[in-house]
Amino acid sequence: MKFRRSGRLVDMTQYLLSNPHQLIPLTFFAERYESAKSSISEDIGIIKEVLEMNRLGNVETSAGASGGVTFVPTVDEKEATDLIDQLLVQLQDPSRLLPGGYLYMMDIIGDSSLTQQLGRVFASYYRKEKIDVVMTMATKGIPLAYAVAQHLHVPVSIVRHEQRITEGSIVSINYVSGSTKRIQTMSLARRSLKPHSNVLIVDDFMKAGGTIRGMMDLVQEFQANVAGVGVLTEAIHEEEKLVSDYTSLTKLSHVDVKAKTIQVERGNIFDRSLS
Amino acid sequence: MKFRRSGRLVDMTQYLLSNPHQLIPLTFFAERYESAKSSISEDIGIIKEVLEMNRLGNVETSAGASGGVTFVPTVDEKEATDLIDQLLVQLQDPSRLLPGGYLYMMDIIGDSSLTQQLGRVFASYYRKEKIDVVMTMATKGIPLAYAVAQHLHVPVSIVRHEQRITEGSIVSINYVSGSTKRIQTMSLARRSLKPHSNVLIVDDFMKAGGTIRGMMDLVQEFQANVAGVGVLTEAIHEEEKLVSDYTSLTKLSHVDVKAKTIQVERGNIFDRSLS
Repeated sequence: MKFRRSGRLVDMTQYLLSNPHQLIPLTFFAERYESAKSSISEDIGIIKEVLEMNRLGNVETSAGASGGVTFVPTVDEKEATDLIDQLLVQLQDPSRLLPGGYLYMMDIIGDSSLTQQLGRVFASYYRKEKIDVVMTMATKGIPLAYAVAQHLHVPVSIVRHEQRITEGSIVSINYVSGSTKRIQTMSLARRSLKPHSNVLIVDDFMKAGGTIRGMMDLVQEFQANVAGVGVLTEAIHEEEKLVSDYTSLTKLSHVDVKAKTIQVERGNIFDRSLS
Repeated sequence: MKFRRSGRLVDMTQYLLSNPHQLIPLTFFAERYESAKSSISEDIGIIKEVLEMNRLGNVETSAGASGGVTFVPTVDEKEATDLIDQLLVQLQDPSRLLPGGYLYMMDIIGDSSLTQQLGRVFASYYRKEKIDVVMTMATKGIPLAYAVAQHLHVPVSIVRHEQRITEGSIVSINYVSGSTKRIQTMSLARRSLKPHSNVLIVDDFMKAGGTIRGMMDLVQEFQANVAGVGVLTEAIHEEEKLVSDYTSLTKLSHVDVKAKTIQVERGNIFDRSLS
């Protein structure tokens, strides 16, 4: 397709946004638009300027014969903080309180657009790490895990409590739930995680950290490495957590069932600059 | 932020792509770029031309005081066909065969980028229907359901086999699995689906259609309406399916465990033009 600059800018922008963390050779664009590489380079310069100014992502260019461009999604620090602050307001709504002090979270997890935005925050935070796959626990971790994976352009491995006949050979481990001290089992399909992969673990909720600890052990069982751990909400736990190195978007600091109050703060991901 | 046309084109493109199925007032862009509405209109004309020519989406403009622009994602018919044809090759790989004639599908479902593209095909197909929410069954339907929901800008309701304390009041129904004839239970959190919602049901697999039929009954139980049913793979079933009106991306037509062959064809979504 032959475009003038304005048309190329629109199409290249959509192409880069749809293909994050992938090196696109300049020759690909040159052929796509039947344009000289020098014009393509100028186009990329404009796109880079706009996306980086708005902190939507970095546009990294590499020179040479295999020269190309890679779009790396980022988040604007202020936008991320605003996003989480709005989430805090939602989370503190007393109508979420369920018997036993549990919180109803399905509306948050079910919000496909919010999930995308939250996934992008983690993808931005871990963008410089080498991540080959995102691992999560069925069911509620799945939406956030996919949002992160998509922005990092990696696949997802889904760990499950029950074993399914449709997964073929599986690896199972027992683990102790940190808060209830019950012994549970988690399984992952053997072919769902390659040895030596670098794994980013993503889940919706962490209290004592037993489930995450279990996933970390499972990663080891596959001769793979844990590259990071990210959770949507961590809950304050009286005892020491079973996981020390993790990032959280929100922190549930207090639930008072009687007074019907919920206190949630920003998570530890904000302890460090996001950019 | 003040941009020249080229900068505005890049930023508006990314903004529209990130906010599908949402009416963005022209005044929003005019203020964002400190530009006259007439310039914004011209920019939108350029974006519309490029996105529609590449069949990436329709850019619908509305005039008047509340005038604005809505980006509606679509797919190019040829690209969608190529995507599914590649998927067919993957699905016919004999190494997927599991004992009992089941197929290993987790690599397909775990591919976050493929899932996005497949979700877009359904979102394009159902783009003119009024859809308020996507419903799916845990676990394996979730990734595709979110991809569809995100392109339609609607939330997701996750139905589950087991009941969870963290979902509050739930509605459960019994249903008969169409292929095994076993009675099973499915549940959905009461507050996870509003009455009178228009529900698009999305799942990974349908054989006799018992699970989908169950979800349709559940939708009725919530006084909501089924607006459509989409599945990644339908399997040929000897008896009549329990669901008559559905779309499938792929059709599993034959599995021969002894000869280790799998036959998969394009699904019925291709019976009608996608554009």
